[in-house]
Amino acid sequence: MNEDYGRLIVQGADRPGIVSSVSTVLAEQGANIVALDQTSSDPSGGRFFQRTVFHLPDLSTRLAELDHALEQKLTDEFGLSYRLVEVKRHKRVAILVSKADHCLLDLLWRQRRGELHMSIPMVISNHPDLGDDVRQFGIPFFHVPVEKDKKAIAEKEHLNLLKGNVDLVVLARYMQIVSGEFLDDVGVPVINIHHSFLPAFMGAGPYQRAKERGVKLVGATAHYVTEDLDEGPIIEQDVIRVSHRESARELQRKGADVERLVLSRAVAWHLDDRVIRDGNTTVVF
Amino acid sequence: MNEDYGRLIVQGADRPGIVSSVSTVLAEQGANIVALDQTSSDPSGGRFFQRTVFHLPDLSTRLAELDHALEQKLTDEFGLSYRLVEVKRHKRVAILVSKADHCLLDLLWRQRRGELHMSIPMVISNHPDLGDDVRQFGIPFFHVPVEKDKKAIAEKEHLNLLKGNVDLVVLARYMQIVSGEFLDDVGVPVINIHHSFLPAFMGAGPYQRAKERGVKLVGATAHYVTEDLDEGPIIEQDVIRVSHRESARELQRKGADVERLVLSRAVAWHLDDRVIRDGNTTVVF
Amino acid sequence: MNEDYGRLIVQGADRPGIVSSVSTVLAEQGANIVALDQTSSDPSGGRFFQRTVFHLPDLSTRLAELDHALEQKLTDEFGLSYRLVEVKRHKRVAILVSKADHCLLDLLWRQRRGELHMSIPMVISNHPDLGDDVRQFGIPFFHVPVEKDKKAIAEKEHLNLLKGNVDLVVLARYMQIVSGEFLDDVGVPVINIHHSFLPAFMGAGPYQRAKERGVKLVGATAHYVTEDLDEGPIIEQDVIRVSHRESARELQRKGADVERLVLSRAVAWHLDDRVIRDGNTTVVF
Amino acid sequence: MNEDYGRLIVQGADRPGIVSSVSTVLAEQGANIVALDQTSSDPSGGRFFQRTVFHLPDLSTRLAELDHALEQKLTDEFGLSYRLVEVKRHKRVAILVSKADHCLLDLLWRQRRGELHMSIPMVISNHPDLGDDVRQFGIPFFHVPVEKDKKAIAEKEHLNLLKGNVDLVVLARYMQIVSGEFLDDVGVPVINIHHSFLPAFMGAGPYQRAKERGVKLVGATAHYVTEDLDEGPIIEQDVIRVSHRESARELQRKGADVERLVLSRAVAWHLDDRVIRDGNTTVVF
Repeated sequence: MNEDYGRLIVQGADRPGIVSSVSTVLAEQGANIVALDQTSSDPSGGRFFQRTVFHLPDLSTRLAELDHALEQKLTDEFGLSYRLVEVKRHKRVAILVSKADHCLLDLLWRQRRGELHMSIPMVISNHPDLGDDVRQFGIPFFHVPVEKDKKAIAEKEHLNLLKGNVDLVVLARYMQIVSGEFLDDVGVPVINIHHSFLPAFMGAGPYQRAKERGVKLVGATAHYVTEDLDEGPIIEQDVIRVSHRESARELQRKGADVERLVLSRAVAWHLDDRVIRDGNTTVVF
Repeated sequence: MNEDYGRLIVQGADRPGIVSSVSTVLAEQGANIVALDQTSSDPSGGRFFQRTVFHLPDLSTRLAELDHALEQKLTDEFGLSYRLVEVKRHKRVAILVSKADHCLLDLLWRQRRGELHMSIPMVISNHPDLGDDVRQFGIPFFHVPVEKDKKAIAEKEHLNLLKGNVDLVVLARYMQIVSGEFLDDVGVPVINIHHSFLPAFMGAGPYQRAKERGVKLVGATAHYVTEDLDEGPIIEQDVIRVSHRESARELQRKGADVERLVLSRAVAWHLDDRVIRDGNTTVVF
Repeated sequence: MNEDYGRLIVQGADRPGIVSSVSTVLAEQGANIVALDQTSSDPSGGRFFQRTVFHLPDLSTRLAELDHALEQKLTDEFGLSYRLVEVKRHKRVAILVSKADHCLLDLLWRQRRGELHMSIPMVISNHPDLGDDVRQFGIPFFHVPVEKDKKAIAEKEHLNLLKGNVDLVVLARYMQIVSGEFLDDVGVPVINIHHSFLPAFMGAGPYQRAKERGVKLVGATAHYVTEDLDEGPIIEQDVIRVSHRESARELQRKGADVERLVLSRAVAWHLDDRVIRDGNTTVVF
Repeated sequence: MNEDYGRLIVQGADRPGIVSSVSTVLAEQGANIVALDQTSSDPSGGRFFQRTVFHLPDLSTRLAELDHALEQKLTDEFGLSYRLVEVKRHKRVAILVSKADHCLLDLLWRQRRGELHMSIPMVISNHPDLGDDVRQFGIPFFHVPVEKDKKAIAEKEHLNLLKGNVDLVVLARYMQIVSGEFLDDVGVPVINIHHSFLPAFMGAGPYQRAKERGVKLVGATAHYVTEDLDEGPIIEQDVIRVSHRESARELQRKGADVERLVLSRAVAWHLDDRVIRDGNTTVVF
């Protein structure tokens, strides 16, 4: 039922007339705009962002022509960058995990239920524990151990598995730091989930330290991974209420409930091209 | 600083090319689109909604010309309805209250702080109690008693005060039922706030009955008033958590905290032309 | 690690000295109170509720003696009812489902990871669809079709399976109405989950009708089942924010996210004896 | 209607028999326990916390006798500390503010409508701006300017105003750092409210920096003030959802909505003796 639907994501320096030009190109090609979100970071001299969903009969065969028309108008005339996507083409997503299953299973369940518009060609883990769970969903599971001081070897193996095969990598509680070289080489976005607190508790034992401060909320943040660990642009966040009644371990369990929900939402929005990166921030339409 | 900014709200039957036509008219008139939200109720044969914020130098003097161009394109060619608004023209809002002060004061505070883009030419109440509070903000307060079986007289007095003087009426815990005749005659939107529960407890003593059922959330709903009491299109809702520890009276207090927040949000969004009515539902951009 | 821990739930007509008597009995028996919650529905002439967690060395062998002492004091002297529970004895829970998997999978998964202190001797469904999922967790799955006008036959089969074998029945999106006879005969509490809205939309197609009214929150309510369908005492509720962007089907998906969380919380609290029924309301400690 | 109600807060090293002893002393004195919350930080060797609300006829005249009995039992026998409070005796609260009015007005308004069980003998500010607002509530307003490098002088003036006159100091967006000497000398608890984010943005311009990272939630934390600025034990926290649509200034406004709610809750709970400090954490019953 998504046949003939497309998405167009445009971003760049704002100037008058962009919306008009985009919609005129689409109208000239016979496309009907189904939904359009547009914003500017600043009314004057800001950055421009637009997400358009459109319907165009015979989209697949007309795609090259539409792309050409957009390139002439948007790239050549306005100096903007854009992405043109067929809605029916599901993104291919690799999931990296360690031992915790909550984020992984939530993604697998939702994908099976048809809530996430993706295929999952592989799950990779530095531990063998979750292999059975993954394979029950008919999804290949690759165990790539990460030995101390030999991370480069493991990352090379990751790259062999991933390159050309996926459009997105999701770190679903993957407890290894990913190197800048890996991020450069893999060539696709990487989404991570991590716990978060008000205030922040950096370093080891965050739940224990949060408890010692008496926090009343535990949360989770899904973000694109950059070289600055846990500091990349935020896609989604949420929190859950806790109290003195819960032990540090119970805080962690409640945190897990938020993590899986936040990660699933972030992945769903990325798959629907709702998230536009803009430096270290995001626009989520 | 809102000088030269305008808003254009368009709605009607969807068909290809509307966004393009709107943005082309704006571009031809020299306007730069600052923000644009658009949606359709259904990809095929649905209803079309668009909110556009634009910047046009000398907007006040150019308004008539722009309006004319829009009418030709949108009304005559596409059969759509639209509203064209200057951002700097604040809407004039009358607030109707009874004895409870929480919603009223929240609106007055926010208006004083510059959070709500409105003027308040009058507050009307069927009780004298809140007169001092209102007048301390420099706002006229009119006491219009509503005697039993003489509501028509009071409503006539309301209409004398309101007609031509306001662009919006807000019922901020006004404990009288408003007649269909009043709604017809007043000629401007009327927003109401009422408590809401999961499940609903119709009739008298809702908080007591909610408590007797053990509800864990109390909420509030802000909506446009229609002849179907409390059944008009919803603008905003929220809830707050409660427990067995709270008495029915404390539930009511917590409910009041939600009511004032929900009403203030609904009014703010209406003032910014973010809310589009569509039959008995709303689009909130 | 729960060895030697017990829970004592006391309820009845309030009068002075109950807390003191309970804690004195426990102290005399050598028990140390680890956590105690107590409340009264009204300071004078109300109903009394107390949940106490205590540690008593050799609890299993001392249980009968403690029970006897409590009976003398609480039943005979104060006319109260009480339940005495060994924490290490997990409750046996049957889950009834139809075709939707979200609530079921959440319960199975949480039980596997040790979050829910229960055993699951069986899952019963009126459809065969979820059999494989259930059996992968090593749990028996019984398919009991419910033919139109022959519900009594199915319920009899249910009772054959359930009676004496379970301490709790959970309706995890079981789309059949349960009869008053069944509730009487099964002899254990039955927990249900249903969607809930502000305002309520009774009857068929609730998500579509909620959308037509423009609701901004969809929610879920977990409650004990009584003969008044969906009107039993509420254990837990929660909501999630929605907007005009979501179709009725997407509202339903978001509703599913709330349903599984609310049901899992309600079951967890019931298993920990945190929920005390009081007529048609609950105290949740 | 709070006549003859008392609260007893007990804390210290846990050991068997405390609850029993407390409730026995109360029962012997003729008191009826209305509500009791008790918890231990750890089942074995933890710290003990108990809050008890009781009704005792002629409490005022019997207070000394009850206190004596509690001291013998709790202090002398168990080595615990306790506080005994008459519910009808409202705490005296001083509010310190700068220029932002949202937290101040929320406290004044709630006190006027009877939601906060306190008297407000004074509001102190380093700016004159809010004097009229405060005095309209019939509350004295003292302007104590804080000149650069002369904070010690201002704090001395604060202490002259406060000492002996108040039971609690609330910093309601008071934009000055309070010295350790002041905290020592003032001799009563000090509650502060500050914005909070996931992740934290220390230092200047937190809302702008939060926006640059794309945060989706802004929040507030109410805590007891200690010498470690903004690091004291947390009483209450909450968050509100934001998006890329909001400017840094709008984030700040939404933050203000959370701040006033969180601070009001924290103050209400403190006034009802629901908050027990335990090192750098809290138990909130």
